[in-house]
Amino acid sequence: MEATFENRIGMKELAGKVMSAKEAAALISDGDVVGMSGFTRAGDAKVVPAALVERAKNEKFKIDIYTGASLGPEVDHDLAIAGGIRKRGPFQADKGIRTLINNGEILFADMHLSHGAEQYRQNIFGTFKYAIIEATAITEDGYLIPTTSVGNNPILAEVAENIIIELNVAQPESLIGVHDIYVPGEQGNREPIPLTKTSDRLGVKGIKLNPSKVKAIVISENLDAPSTIVPPDEETQIMANHILDFLRSEIKAGRLTNTLAPIQSGIGSVANAVLDGFKESEFEHLEVYSEVLQDAVFNLIDAGKVDFASATSITLSAEKGKEVYGNLDKYADKLVLRPQEISNQPELIRRLGLISINTALEADIYGNVNSTHVSGSKMMNGIGGSGDFARNARLGIFITKSYAKGGSISSIVPMVTHVDHTEHDVDVLVTEQGVADLRGLAPKERVPLIINNCVHPDFKEQLWEYYNAAVEATGNAQTPHILSRAFEMYERLEKTGSMKK
Amino acid sequence: MEATFENRIGMKELAGKVMSAKEAAALISDGDVVGMSGFTRAGDAKVVPAALVERAKNEKFKIDIYTGASLGPEVDHDLAIAGGIRKRGPFQADKGIRTLINNGEILFADMHLSHGAEQYRQNIFGTFKYAIIEATAITEDGYLIPTTSVGNNPILAEVAENIIIELNVAQPESLIGVHDIYVPGEQGNREPIPLTKTSDRLGVKGIKLNPSKVKAIVISENLDAPSTIVPPDEETQIMANHILDFLRSEIKAGRLTNTLAPIQSGIGSVANAVLDGFKESEFEHLEVYSEVLQDAVFNLIDAGKVDFASATSITLSAEKGKEVYGNLDKYADKLVLRPQEISNQPELIRRLGLISINTALEADIYGNVNSTHVSGSKMMNGIGGSGDFARNARLGIFITKSYAKGGSISSIVPMVTHVDHTEHDVDVLVTEQGVADLRGLAPKERVPLIINNCVHPDFKEQLWEYYNAAVEATGNAQTPHILSRAFEMYERLEKTGSMKK
Repeated sequence: MEATFENRIGMKELAGKVMSAKEAAALISDGDVVGMSGFTRAGDAKVVPAALVERAKNEKFKIDIYTGASLGPEVDHDLAIAGGIRKRGPFQADKGIRTLINNGEILFADMHLSHGAEQYRQNIFGTFKYAIIEATAITEDGYLIPTTSVGNNPILAEVAENIIIELNVAQPESLIGVHDIYVPGEQGNREPIPLTKTSDRLGVKGIKLNPSKVKAIVISENLDAPSTIVPPDEETQIMANHILDFLRSEIKAGRLTNTLAPIQSGIGSVANAVLDGFKESEFEHLEVYSEVLQDAVFNLIDAGKVDFASATSITLSAEKGKEVYGNLDKYADKLVLRPQEISNQPELIRRLGLISINTALEADIYGNVNSTHVSGSKMMNGIGGSGDFARNARLGIFITKSYAKGGSISSIVPMVTHVDHTEHDVDVLVTEQGVADLRGLAPKERVPLIINNCVHPDFKEQLWEYYNAAVEATGNAQTPHILSRAFEMYERLEKTGSMKK
Repeated sequence: MEATFENRIGMKELAGKVMSAKEAAALISDGDVVGMSGFTRAGDAKVVPAALVERAKNEKFKIDIYTGASLGPEVDHDLAIAGGIRKRGPFQADKGIRTLINNGEILFADMHLSHGAEQYRQNIFGTFKYAIIEATAITEDGYLIPTTSVGNNPILAEVAENIIIELNVAQPESLIGVHDIYVPGEQGNREPIPLTKTSDRLGVKGIKLNPSKVKAIVISENLDAPSTIVPPDEETQIMANHILDFLRSEIKAGRLTNTLAPIQSGIGSVANAVLDGFKESEFEHLEVYSEVLQDAVFNLIDAGKVDFASATSITLSAEKGKEVYGNLDKYADKLVLRPQEISNQPELIRRLGLISINTALEADIYGNVNSTHVSGSKMMNGIGGSGDFARNARLGIFITKSYAKGGSISSIVPMVTHVDHTEHDVDVLVTEQGVADLRGLAPKERVPLIINNCVHPDFKEQLWEYYNAAVEATGNAQTPHILSRAFEMYERLEKTGSMKK
């Protein structure tokens, strides 16, 4: 391994900083605020966190961890369970940490993924003692080259007092050149971000490194935890088809052409199914401007359907990962990874006019969406980038199956128990039942579209009954609600195990 | 009057289009979708709408009206009450129309003020048959010069099939040059908006007019309905001081300097009191980048505290109006009026790093804000630009008195009945009781700050009791709620006339 890693440390002054994960982990102190690389389990540090787990098991050791987005099991499962995390932000997606967030043992700062960099820059979370960043290489001209995600690495490297680099020699050197690092200046002293096409390159190949901050380089060969794509079932396939049909209707209305607009799609199997649906479609020369690229995007590139894909992270299945990273040259002119401050930037999302597809946990009859809190209290994963996109996209589409738990729960309710996306940001709601195009409608105009087109037949009657009673009780107000009944479906669920009457 | 208006019509080919308000109003058909100028009762058409009121009183006549923001009494009171409005967007602030919105007689599309132009451009509301736009002049080189607001005029003039111009000869010709008209291109084919300072001028002096669209020019001498500023009471003064002190603490923390950052403040007496507070403060060389300029901003310019003010509208008291419009030259190099697509643009709000101050109707113990719906059902005015600013500002501050209705209602509740601004966009909450700085905090970290610092003493105990019970009931989840009790303070209010136990 030694021969392998040495030619990846181009800045020879840093060669002496190589040490073991255990030695590097010993630099961190109990109570530290630590930044870490990683976005949707891609490009996260792995071996130093594993060494931190050992510390947490054996001594009083608890730190605050802020990242790009969700990390792999070393942090969001093992370190969490070992009691090594006091506070975590801005996103997580692991049952291990989720359980501890929901029993009060770990604090979770759920954040819009575009807000993180601004808040780190403003020192809102305290001083970052260390940033632990996975890298492909340190180039001779002083750039730290990320691996499979960029996330918040540039801003973390900038604001952290010290840096620990996890040099991952299992990641191909052909990753050099895939990244485009552009960091906006201070607010108030900032130029327009000069991106007008998904394929524009704005910056440099890596993160300009201040070598005096580098306190350790740890060699790693651990690959990202692979994503486990659930294959589309009949209903995700139906939802995907609904979206494709809706996009066709937008072309007919003269709002889109056959090349559509740059597509953002959230993570998960429905999003993946939608993207897969494009493969056999008539749409062409598509572009992707998203946070995360999953298997489907590479399949679309392979099929000649997608001309270019921009994101901040690549999260692939084990099989697809081998294929893509074994042939990166093939994708070199079709792919760029950017800081999440650029992938999720309102300025760019609105300028490009994205078609944004994200998953809802539940929606209400007026079009508000809950994407984070089960029954209003328990955190699922976090808002992630869905708000950045939905608020600024040309088309903010939210998808959810109309029911959950085998049919006992309706995903459409009178009032959502937590609002992540307000009625103003939900343009189109899609379930396996159908599509509700909510754009330009007053709340009461949305109700029949949502109930008739999107609600499961088992729940239509009780939602109509609630709505009609609320219209009556409020004298037909702007957004009729009966507060004492707004959550009655949850109260029934709690008592009987089902929302059904 | 004839001598006066003729030299305001520089495009001589349009001289023959001058007609009476009644004749112009006759061009509009029942069922039309009509765009109108006007933003916070400034720069709105007045005499043609008055003639439309007569039609609505005498025949079957109902139209859809989309504007910049709220209009004066001709539309939002008289035409509404005469039954002449089927649907209205994106904002209103008149008891006349509000009552009809809340009894189901008028549909109201409440919208983020930055979303309007995109939706008009995409033809979401149907084809605009007419745009009725108040103007100061039509220049020889073909520009329509707005009056006291720009609002959505540029996009309405672009998308409407026909244009009726209300040429207001009572507005001073010195308004020519105050406006800076820059209209972004189609999404996906749009350049960065080249604004990096509040004082930058990006465009041209007026709206490039397609003369073939102009179907009527109606002469008017009616001034804007003056704003009725409520003088600050003791509590608005205390809130203003809280905000000034908070800004001082931000300077100490190294996040701001003595010149602060460009300030946006919502309309109303608290915002006005805050701005007035700057007059005697140590802050200097301030800048304003806002939607609306009220009296206080001009007082600050007069006092040498504000160097430059950018907005889309000027709404003044009668007295201040005389002073400002009588001496516009004095403000010429310190003032610009832009389209609301520019004043409220996320791209620019985030780039400039605004300090944004807006009013909440109510907030909850986790920091979600309701700024539109009384008891969750009845519309007040609309979300306006508050979301555009809060989501993208450097500092999103929300202010509200801690109580309403003489103390029987708490403005802080367990769960707001409608969410306009989610927990992620509310950085700082201010009441006359104190300040809660919520940045970077997990929901449960926010609760003690909000209850201890912001809640009125009469309600602290019951909010603590709810929160503690919810922590217990949910096993200390991320955001503890007991859904069957979340609205119990409203249920008590309904039964007893007070939220007090």
